[in-house]
Amino acid sequence: MSSIDEIVLPSPADFHVHVRQGAMSRLVCPAVAQGGIHTAYVMPNLVPPITSTEAALSYRDTLRSISPDTEWLMTLYLGPAITPDEIRKAAVAGISGESESTRVPAGVLGSGIEDYGVYYPVFKAMEEVGMVLNLHGEVPSDASKNISVLNAEKLFLTHLRKLAADFPKLRIVLEHATTAEAIECVSSLPSNVACTITAHHLYLTIDDVAPQPFHFCKPIAKEPRDRSALQSAIASGNPKFFLGSDSAPHPLASKIPSIASAEVPPSPCAAGVYTSPILVPLVATLLESFGALDKLEGFVSAHGRRFYGVPAKEGKEVRLRRSKGGDKVTSVMKGEEGVEIVPFWAGKELGWEIA
Amino acid sequence: MSSIDEIVLPSPADFHVHVRQGAMSRLVCPAVAQGGIHTAYVMPNLVPPITSTEAALSYRDTLRSISPDTEWLMTLYLGPAITPDEIRKAAVAGISGESESTRVPAGVLGSGIEDYGVYYPVFKAMEEVGMVLNLHGEVPSDASKNISVLNAEKLFLTHLRKLAADFPKLRIVLEHATTAEAIECVSSLPSNVACTITAHHLYLTIDDVAPQPFHFCKPIAKEPRDRSALQSAIASGNPKFFLGSDSAPHPLASKIPSIASAEVPPSPCAAGVYTSPILVPLVATLLESFGALDKLEGFVSAHGRRFYGVPAKEGKEVRLRRSKGGDKVTSVMKGEEGVEIVPFWAGKELGWEIA
Repeated sequence: MSSIDEIVLPSPADFHVHVRQGAMSRLVCPAVAQGGIHTAYVMPNLVPPITSTEAALSYRDTLRSISPDTEWLMTLYLGPAITPDEIRKAAVAGISGESESTRVPAGVLGSGIEDYGVYYPVFKAMEEVGMVLNLHGEVPSDASKNISVLNAEKLFLTHLRKLAADFPKLRIVLEHATTAEAIECVSSLPSNVACTITAHHLYLTIDDVAPQPFHFCKPIAKEPRDRSALQSAIASGNPKFFLGSDSAPHPLASKIPSIASAEVPPSPCAAGVYTSPILVPLVATLLESFGALDKLEGFVSAHGRRFYGVPAKEGKEVRLRRSKGGDKVTSVMKGEEGVEIVPFWAGKELGWEIA
Repeated sequence: MSSIDEIVLPSPADFHVHVRQGAMSRLVCPAVAQGGIHTAYVMPNLVPPITSTEAALSYRDTLRSISPDTEWLMTLYLGPAITPDEIRKAAVAGISGESESTRVPAGVLGSGIEDYGVYYPVFKAMEEVGMVLNLHGEVPSDASKNISVLNAEKLFLTHLRKLAADFPKLRIVLEHATTAEAIECVSSLPSNVACTITAHHLYLTIDDVAPQPFHFCKPIAKEPRDRSALQSAIASGNPKFFLGSDSAPHPLASKIPSIASAEVPPSPCAAGVYTSPILVPLVATLLESFGALDKLEGFVSAHGRRFYGVPAKEGKEVRLRRSKGGDKVTSVMKGEEGVEIVPFWAGKELGWEIA
């Protein structure tokens, strides 16, 4: 493997990315292409969330105006506003070759499968029009049931299995899996169920997260055995597993607890790890670290595109070359209006760079 | 319970506290008494660590010069410098009614029971002279064995059981227990094995720690079931369980990641939660929250003193009264030389206060 010094990837895609709004959006949208990504599947959790076709198209216009060369694929945020009619409308709007998908956020998930019942007509409509259901697979923490961020994903898998059984033709993605149990579950389900894996969960464990707000995200990185399971899923070449970075920028002030006012307890930090500006080189570096560099193309270019039916455009290749060393990842990115972000891997060196 | 508005405690003791050196020490030593504690069992992990009787006595002189009214009990830091001779010397120095104890820090623990073999002659000498062995019960993280901060304490219990069996007359304290398994293990062992419990582990779970550096400590707070087990151990009134706050102040800059230099990755934050200035009122507030206020005296005044053989001095009572409300815990404590600390519970209200 060490003899390879260049890799050509056909049009890498990130099937789960947060690109925000306003000044933050203007800083992070260009970083998507900078990180080697051509196609970005954009999360709808804005303020307010994207819950209509019109809002999704308007948001896409904004993203295109910032970064016209990136292919932006839009999603809707599951909630009361999402009806079967809205789903059919989104499908009819049928934006050339791109998916309008619905994402279930953890926040509206509820604590039992009963809560999904409400959305069954929506899921049925999605199944009919061929939209993809993206699931943030965590049940809410509940101390009385011993549910915490540690077992929230494992306990969600029952719901995933039931949805997969009830909607055998609905394409479902378990987003940003973090546990050995999730990998095993997705592997065992039919081909309509796939799974995204982030770059940072291939590297972090709970030991790295606990003392470092910049490593805190949801789902939280778990035990070494879980990290190994994610790595093995990629190393196996199973096309169910593909890149969804969950790259989620937060202003510096949201990541570092505020203690300015003696009247206020220190704020907990926002959940999110920001990987966009280094994404493809980082993924290459990590896959090489566990001997899966030969699976890079499948993981970042092929599997996700095939699952979503979003083929690569001709001539959109990304060329990676081995880093000569000495270049460190930027510690702080600065945008307009005082926006500052600390990217993942800040101050460290990557094994690969974009040529 | 709600009819009780005043509690009188005979001479509360904290059997595990970090009071540091220099300007930090001058800020935190007086806070021990402020938090209602008369007797403080002081941890030896200074720079350099306390590894001789002379150093322990000199450190005690310093602490006495800062806060003469607090009874300071000293400990030694287990390492190559601690020999059976040093143990006997410490015992002969026999400071009136106080214990010189040896603490096994996590850092020198090694990954297997073989490492304890080296210290068996020391433990034998401690058993003979009646010193107490304080154990930070965590094995080191090791990804290849799936050992992380989550299971480090559970995996230590094998070593605790073996030590208890090999030294049936050695008094051993498992410090700052955080898991249901540790509580069960200590409960099942003979009366020479006891266990300290901190205030913050009665409140926090992993969900509170992950987004908040000021809640990060070692051992890390775990699942709700673990917190319940700690609470139940106290509610049971079992004298094996008593207060050791592990109150561990860190300068603000060590708790909040530094991102000043573009050349340096953000620093991980230091492990430690600082509870000294509010300790006894906090413990009262927490015990009342889970219906164990009637066990407060045993937990903070009686059980630990009995185990260590350090009786309360006459007339040293602490009077708690129910808070009238409106007073918030200080967000930032400021000392000399720019030292700043954020205490646990900052900005929140306590149910009890010292009269």
